[in-house]
Amino acid sequence: MKLLKMFTYRRRVHFYETDAQGFMHHSNYFRLFEETRGEFLRSLGLPYSELRKKGFEVVLIDAFAKYLRPVHYDDLLEVHLNLEDLTRVKFVFSYTVVVEGELKAKGKTTHCVIKNSKPIKLPNELYNLLKEVKEF
Amino acid sequence: MKLLKMFTYRRRVHFYETDAQGFMHHSNYFRLFEETRGEFLRSLGLPYSELRKKGFEVVLIDAFAKYLRPVHYDDLLEVHLNLEDLTRVKFVFSYTVVVEGELKAKGKTTHCVIKNSKPIKLPNELYNLLKEVKEF
Amino acid sequence: MKLLKMFTYRRRVHFYETDAQGFMHHSNYFRLFEETRGEFLRSLGLPYSELRKKGFEVVLIDAFAKYLRPVHYDDLLEVHLNLEDLTRVKFVFSYTVVVEGELKAKGKTTHCVIKNSKPIKLPNELYNLLKEVKEF
Amino acid sequence: MKLLKMFTYRRRVHFYETDAQGFMHHSNYFRLFEETRGEFLRSLGLPYSELRKKGFEVVLIDAFAKYLRPVHYDDLLEVHLNLEDLTRVKFVFSYTVVVEGELKAKGKTTHCVIKNSKPIKLPNELYNLLKEVKEF
Repeated sequence: MKLLKMFTYRRRVHFYETDAQGFMHHSNYFRLFEETRGEFLRSLGLPYSELRKKGFEVVLIDAFAKYLRPVHYDDLLEVHLNLEDLTRVKFVFSYTVVVEGELKAKGKTTHCVIKNSKPIKLPNELYNLLKEVKEF
Repeated sequence: MKLLKMFTYRRRVHFYETDAQGFMHHSNYFRLFEETRGEFLRSLGLPYSELRKKGFEVVLIDAFAKYLRPVHYDDLLEVHLNLEDLTRVKFVFSYTVVVEGELKAKGKTTHCVIKNSKPIKLPNELYNLLKEVKEF
Repeated sequence: MKLLKMFTYRRRVHFYETDAQGFMHHSNYFRLFEETRGEFLRSLGLPYSELRKKGFEVVLIDAFAKYLRPVHYDDLLEVHLNLEDLTRVKFVFSYTVVVEGELKAKGKTTHCVIKNSKPIKLPNELYNLLKEVKEF
Repeated sequence: MKLLKMFTYRRRVHFYETDAQGFMHHSNYFRLFEETRGEFLRSLGLPYSELRKKGFEVVLIDAFAKYLRPVHYDDLLEVHLNLEDLTRVKFVFSYTVVVEGELKAKGKTTHCVIKNSKPIKLPNELYNLLKEVKEF
C-alpha cells in the first residue's frame, strides 16, 4: 500500500463527454472526480466496490467545480486528488484537472457514509486509512 | 386509459446530449427510447415505477438504432413507439424519431422481465395490457 | 412574454439517470439545471439555440450543488430557478429541487458568454432581458 | 505499429454508468464501444482526434447490442473489437464484452465518414490502415 497525500488519476476525454461547444460538458467533471476517488480508494487497498459489499454507501453532501479553461476530446487529463478534510462523519476531497501542465479546472466534493439508508460514522477501515493519508 | 397501437412522445434535444460533432450523440437515442417506453407504459396506466415496486425489472435483450439524419440541440423530437411483437416471455418495441416531419432515426428494443434476478414470464398485468395494445 | 423572478421547470427522473444506489446520480443535477435554464431562456422569448445561431456560447464559470435528500426514478422534480446576480459580464442562477413539497437539493451556477472563443460582455438582448427579470 | 485483427480494450465499469437495477445501463455499452474503437484507431497510429483535425468526422449508420448477462460496478471489462467489413464508403466493427472469461454482451456498429457535412469515401489513410487490418 502506497500512501500519498496527493493522488493522480490519468485518462483521456471521451468523445461522448464532449458537447456541441466542442468541450467536455461541465457535468462530466463530476463523473471524472468520481472515477478519481474510486481509483484513490483502490490505491489505498480499499476499493469502493468492497465497501459496498459490506453494505456501506458513500454519498455526496455537496459538489463544486470551477472551470478555468475548456478541455477537448482526446485531451490527456491528469486529475490530482487531495484529502482536504476528515471527521468521524464526513470527508472532503479537492481536485485539480491539468492537461499538459495547464490548470483547467478545480473541484471539491464532500461525502458521508450511509448504511441501511441512514447516515453513520465512517466505517473504521475507511476512517483509519483516510486518517493515515491526512497525517502523512 | 387510452389504448393506441402507436404512441408518440415529444421532447427537445438537451444540450448535454450533443457532442463535438454538434449532433445528439448516438448513445442518447437509446435513452430517448427508454423515456418513450416509460411514458408509453404510464399512458397504459402501468408506470414502470409501479412494476418495480412489485419486484419486477424490465431488462433489455437487445437494442438497435439506425441513424438516418443527425438531430441538433433544441430540435423538437417526436418518438413514435410501436409494439412489434409480444410473447409470454418477451416484447419488442420499434421506434421512429421524427423532427418537423422528417424521419431522423429508427430503433428497436427487445425486453424480458426478471424477478429476484431470474427471467420470468411477463407479469399478467403487463402482458394483458400489451396484448390489448397488440390486438387493437 | 411572462417575466417571473422565479421560474419553475418540471419533469420526472429518468431511469438512466439513476445509479446503483437507486438514486439520481449527483452529476445529473447539473444536467437538470442546464435544462431548467434553457427552458427559462425560452420562457423569456430568447431560446439558447437562437443565441447560438448568432455565434454566442454561454459557458460555465462554476457550478455547485448541495444534496439534501435523494431522488428516485420517476419522481416528479420541480426545479425553481432564481436569477441571483447579473453584471455586464456574468450572471448567476440558483436552483432548488423539490419533490412533493420536500426540498431535495440546491444548486448555483455562474455563467459568462464567449464569441469566437473569447469572453465578451453579455449580448444586449440577453442582458436586457435578464435585467428586467432581476428588477422585477 | 502493431496490426492485430482482434483488438482488446480494458477498463472498469464506473459507478455513474450503473442504474437502479445495479447493472451498467444498456446505453453505456455504446459509449464503451466508442472508447474501444478510439483506442483501436490510436493503436494503428491514427487517433480519431487527428482525423478530426483534417476535417473528417466518423459518424454512425447503425448500432446494435445484445445483452447476455449484466455487468456491475467495478467489473473489469474486456472489449474485443473486430473489423467485420470494409468498403470504400463504410466499415463495420463487432464487439464482444467479457468479464473474467464470461461473455456478457455483443455489439456491432457501422460507420461512414463525412466532411463538410457530406458523406465521402473513406480518407485513404484510414482506408489503407483498415485494409491492412482486414487482410491480416
